Amino acid sequence: MRVSARNKLPGVVQEITTDGLMAKVSVRIGDNHLVALVTAEAVKEMGLAVGDEVTAMIKSTSVMLAKGD
Amino acid sequence: MRVSARNKLPGVVQEITTDGLMAKVSVRIGDNHLVALVTAEAVKEMGLAVGDEVTAMIKSTSVMLAKGD
Amino acid sequence: MRVSARNKLPGVVQEITTDGLMAKVSVRIGDNHLVALVTAEAVKEMGLAVGDEVTAMIKSTSVMLAKGD
Amino acid sequence: MRVSARNKLPGVVQEITTDGLMAKVSVRIGDNHLVALVTAEAVKEMGLAVGDEVTAMIKSTSVMLAKGD
Amino acid sequence: MRVSARNKLPGVVQEITTDGLMAKVSVRIGDNHLVALVTAEAVKEMGLAVGDEVTAMIKSTSVMLAKGD
Amino acid sequence: MRVSARNKLPGVVQEITTDGLMAKVSVRIGDNHLVALVTAEAVKEMGLAVGDEVTAMIKSTSVMLAKGD
Repeated sequence: MRVSARNKLPGVVQEITTDGLMAKVSVRIGDNHLVALVTAEAVKEMGLAVGDEVTAMIKSTSVMLAKGD
Repeated sequence: MRVSARNKLPGVVQEITTDGLMAKVSVRIGDNHLVALVTAEAVKEMGLAVGDEVTAMIKSTSVMLAKGD
Repeated sequence: MRVSARNKLPGVVQEITTDGLMAKVSVRIGDNHLVALVTAEAVKEMGLAVGDEVTAMIKSTSVMLAKGD
Repeated sequence: MRVSARNKLPGVVQEITTDGLMAKVSVRIGDNHLVALVTAEAVKEMGLAVGDEVTAMIKSTSVMLAKGD
Repeated sequence: MRVSARNKLPGVVQEITTDGLMAKVSVRIGDNHLVALVTAEAVKEMGLAVGDEVTAMIKSTSVMLAKGD
Repeated sequence: MRVSARNKLPGVVQEITTDGLMAKVSVRIGDNHLVALVTAEAVKEMGLAVGDEVTAMIKSTSVMLAKGD
């Protein structure tokens, strides 16, 4: 499957915290960590678990840049 | 400055393409590349140039996850 | 591939307008039309063309609701 | 009222699940279902209920496209 | 019309710059300025012009907070 | 620090409601109120409290415009 999202970062799920409707999924991407806030329903439907290989997808319009201190 | 965005990835600007109101900025983050679509005005105001050290900031609600092929 | 995005609407590409860095893609979803603003690079890389069957993916946090006149 | 959002899909509320600060609203749009994650406050203030006719509004920059399997 | 977006800021259009598919609309909100990047099509369809009274709508999930220097 | 986000509105935190993974932060911006939905983790890490001076940052692509009634 090809997706229009410009950012597709491969990583491994490190932690999943579910609370009510929401779930916070921490993914290791190389030396960085990425946090995704998704629905608890998505975690369940995907059968997402710690150790899973996933791809974090981010539209380029959702990325901000900061420079300097 | 502390920001609420959960994802703050340090990187180096590799390429900037400006066209009209928009600019596409490619940033190297470790072994990955991240593309940010920002306004041309932002690039100008920040004095953004290839080689600059920047931080890519992404709200956790903007991250999607994909699993499997 | 399973994705965390809650909204995955199957449709057919009806029109693609590319200008500079951006592309506007019009997709027919049942009786509705959906407009996606993506990068021109994405359209090229996906080989997107009129008549293609695609899936429009939208995070549930990106949907607003309006009621009344 | 005219809005800049390109996507305005008319539908009917099918299910509302509220938990803490958030609410998940399921809307039938023709043959599709759309899930909106809004604040519980919005649901209360709008007096949103199952059976209500609503319009789902989505900015075109929030739509991603996927093609193939 | 009632909308789920928590942020509805009344303002006056101060400047509109259109280029290709995109338009940058500057809106005065009290003592602040807000920039909206919308499609050129939206500006045309809304008949948007300098001096128009508009409401800037922003989902609460799209707002980031920064503190300190 | 310079950021690409076009909208940087200075304000004062008026109310913080935390529930599970999420927090709703109400900020006074001049005569307006702005609601930010961030993670509870962000509120904690930033040491965010009522009375704090903050900057609300919003990407221009996240702003919608409405005109008329």
